[in-house]
Amino acid sequence: MLFLVRMDVQIPHDLPADKAEEIKAREKAYSQDLQRQGKWQALYRVVGEYANYSVFDVETNDELHTMLSSLPLFPYMKIQVTPLARHPSSIR
Amino acid sequence: MLFLVRMDVQIPHDLPADKAEEIKAREKAYSQDLQRQGKWQALYRVVGEYANYSVFDVETNDELHTMLSSLPLFPYMKIQVTPLARHPSSIR
Amino acid sequence: MLFLVRMDVQIPHDLPADKAEEIKAREKAYSQDLQRQGKWQALYRVVGEYANYSVFDVETNDELHTMLSSLPLFPYMKIQVTPLARHPSSIR
Amino acid sequence: MLFLVRMDVQIPHDLPADKAEEIKAREKAYSQDLQRQGKWQALYRVVGEYANYSVFDVETNDELHTMLSSLPLFPYMKIQVTPLARHPSSIR
Amino acid sequence: MLFLVRMDVQIPHDLPADKAEEIKAREKAYSQDLQRQGKWQALYRVVGEYANYSVFDVETNDELHTMLSSLPLFPYMKIQVTPLARHPSSIR
Amino acid sequence: MLFLVRMDVQIPHDLPADKAEEIKAREKAYSQDLQRQGKWQALYRVVGEYANYSVFDVETNDELHTMLSSLPLFPYMKIQVTPLARHPSSIR
Amino acid sequence: MLFLVRMDVQIPHDLPADKAEEIKAREKAYSQDLQRQGKWQALYRVVGEYANYSVFDVETNDELHTMLSSLPLFPYMKIQVTPLARHPSSIR
Amino acid sequence: MLFLVRMDVQIPHDLPADKAEEIKAREKAYSQDLQRQGKWQALYRVVGEYANYSVFDVETNDELHTMLSSLPLFPYMKIQVTPLARHPSSIR
Amino acid sequence: MLFLVRMDVQIPHDLPADKAEEIKAREKAYSQDLQRQGKWQALYRVVGEYANYSVFDVETNDELHTMLSSLPLFPYMKIQVTPLARHPSSIR
Amino acid sequence: MLFLVRMDVQIPHDLPADKAEEIKAREKAYSQDLQRQGKWQALYRVVGEYANYSVFDVETNDELHTMLSSLPLFPYMKIQVTPLARHPSSIR
Repeated sequence: MLFLVRMDVQIPHDLPADKAEEIKAREKAYSQDLQRQGKWQALYRVVGEYANYSVFDVETNDELHTMLSSLPLFPYMKIQVTPLARHPSSIR
Repeated sequence: MLFLVRMDVQIPHDLPADKAEEIKAREKAYSQDLQRQGKWQALYRVVGEYANYSVFDVETNDELHTMLSSLPLFPYMKIQVTPLARHPSSIR
Repeated sequence: MLFLVRMDVQIPHDLPADKAEEIKAREKAYSQDLQRQGKWQALYRVVGEYANYSVFDVETNDELHTMLSSLPLFPYMKIQVTPLARHPSSIR
Repeated sequence: MLFLVRMDVQIPHDLPADKAEEIKAREKAYSQDLQRQGKWQALYRVVGEYANYSVFDVETNDELHTMLSSLPLFPYMKIQVTPLARHPSSIR
Repeated sequence: MLFLVRMDVQIPHDLPADKAEEIKAREKAYSQDLQRQGKWQALYRVVGEYANYSVFDVETNDELHTMLSSLPLFPYMKIQVTPLARHPSSIR
Repeated sequence: MLFLVRMDVQIPHDLPADKAEEIKAREKAYSQDLQRQGKWQALYRVVGEYANYSVFDVETNDELHTMLSSLPLFPYMKIQVTPLARHPSSIR
Repeated sequence: MLFLVRMDVQIPHDLPADKAEEIKAREKAYSQDLQRQGKWQALYRVVGEYANYSVFDVETNDELHTMLSSLPLFPYMKIQVTPLARHPSSIR
Repeated sequence: MLFLVRMDVQIPHDLPADKAEEIKAREKAYSQDLQRQGKWQALYRVVGEYANYSVFDVETNDELHTMLSSLPLFPYMKIQVTPLARHPSSIR
Repeated sequence: MLFLVRMDVQIPHDLPADKAEEIKAREKAYSQDLQRQGKWQALYRVVGEYANYSVFDVETNDELHTMLSSLPLFPYMKIQVTPLARHPSSIR
Repeated sequence: MLFLVRMDVQIPHDLPADKAEEIKAREKAYSQDLQRQGKWQALYRVVGEYANYSVFDVETNDELHTMLSSLPLFPYMKIQVTPLARHPSSIR
């Protein structure tokens, strides 16, 4: 079951630089782990913005919320979730 | 080069039904042709809406505009295009 | 799996009255059938508007989209879907 | 008398962690107490957001405002209230 | 129990003038009847717009929705309802 | 001459509590004084929000601006003013 | 007492051209009459739009509403009114 | 003196096709004439939309408004004008 | 050449009071100097807001930007500029 | 391949002045280097705002994102990117 997710990162400018780096490092590891599991199916940078569009493949809404709220950057992100369905013209 | 495209279809309710059906049939054929060529990489229905999110893979902005403006439903759609870049955490 | 759905109905004022009535009658029957099946878990009128907030309980995004796009009033509605998850403070 | 309420939580990042935890603990207890009384009829997490949609069942607007403004997280939330009425197609 | 209601009237320009006049005459009579009953407590014109702000005093949400959806101009209005509570600084 | 005024209060969370209380106490006294004079004709709490809708009865725009900008909470409020006129269907 | 007024004109494209011309001619005469009286103090075209910003000088809100709602183009305009006060830095 | 202008074209779907074609032909000729004069300095298509971004080089606001309101498509366009100034980092 | 300018002032609440006063004093002197030169043609307070609408009369866009960006309050303001043209119905 | 880019700068008021100046100096050098290479084709100030509209000429979306995210002011800017295509009426 697919969901399109947009994440906009807004790290407060007075967050210490080393703390920010540590959070980003954990975010990257966490994200790549989910990608390898096939849960985080696609991850794109939005050109010119500290933001991404992603496609998640999950079993339930609860599974998706648990994943997203466990993101190390979650407290510093604005997230929008759009549920997707099969399109009748899709050849896949 | 990837682009996320959202298309919202708004067919006027006084368009004759057979004309609408004929346009939709051409739209489907055109879309599937581009999908087979690998240009229209992904096509998802937005749940509950007459709308889709799509990913296009093209060489240039001009190529993308030509494709989109040639859609049989183009006169009846609101389209938003977001350019995408490689994300540093993507494993692909 | 729960989803909050808001539906805003906008019937064109030049749609013949009997056609509108016939569509609304089918809408009501269809809605009550889904309610009896437990799929359309709650249905509330928004005070002062020709709109409703509903809660759907479905297995997949595809099932929800099929249900919503089969609504007799679907061509005359603006629909917004919000996926819901279990809240950690909920006692249910 | 039912109301749909959306609450978006925005805790300032420089609020001390223990103070934040203490507020959240009180919020949970308060919320569960109202749920047990049947006043806070439903409580759902919005997927991907630090937000909820809730249904309240109260006697008056004043009762609802007193409940909401007494939430321990009230100073850190954006709240939107939508009054609901019986829907003529509802089978309940 | 008080509610602030904003109504914006949008009569389609191709509605026959006599039908529009007949609807407006019924609207006025209906409105004045509710005002005399004390249900429609205040009715103000928004300067420069075909719109009003009103205060309603009702027992329940259902009563308010029944009143508003029975307005002869209801099919041609956009209505927004805001529930009001007693303000702690009010001297009334 | 009547005006509808909406005030949204946003007190910065790092304002010392005693200073905030002192400002609110002055706000209340100031507001009740204007109410007793008949200038601040109505004052309603918006349910679920730290906000109010008010009706002011003043001689001129300048008088209204002087009143509003003298509110002790003025530096912490977002204010919107809507000029009102007599409605032709009003029975008052 | 001054008000800033923005008017956006939207004449339906299927209004007969001669009727539109007749309305515009009356609008111009009406506008110039109010300008000569000093009521319509300033009238500016918004560059690139079928819209204007105007400054009105009136005694009351009711006088302003009567003037604006009597505009021959009133049924085809979206109007926004902003009440103005004396600015403490103004040298006038 | 430079201005950025965005034009969104919305031709009503019931405008006869030959009339639409005739207007577009005149629009093209008019546009190319202004481009050759150096007044319409740049003209870009917005990818995926029936819209353009343009840069105009004019002597006055009045000259720009006269140009834009003389566009054959003017009655069918939504236009937004942004005045531009020299940027201190520009090397031109 | 006329421009309508709206300025919304947002002074951070933790700016020292004497610094704020000193900036405002310079703002007033600067504004009155431009008014005396006839450049800042009109200056109105928006009722209920720390904001103004102004009319500037300048030779070029560059002149206007230089004036506005030299305002002592410029770092604390949100400014919107609308270019104005002569209105065909204006009697001036 | 052209892109229109709007950048809005928002430097936090508590950033030390010398750090801000140092960042702006690097921004200017970086911008002028890209302009000399022909990548940053045009750079305009938006009148009255700490913002610019720019035109970039790049080979790919990735190249554009790398350029924009390397701007010294990037952490303090809101950036919007619009892909442009050749316009059929352009004479260039």
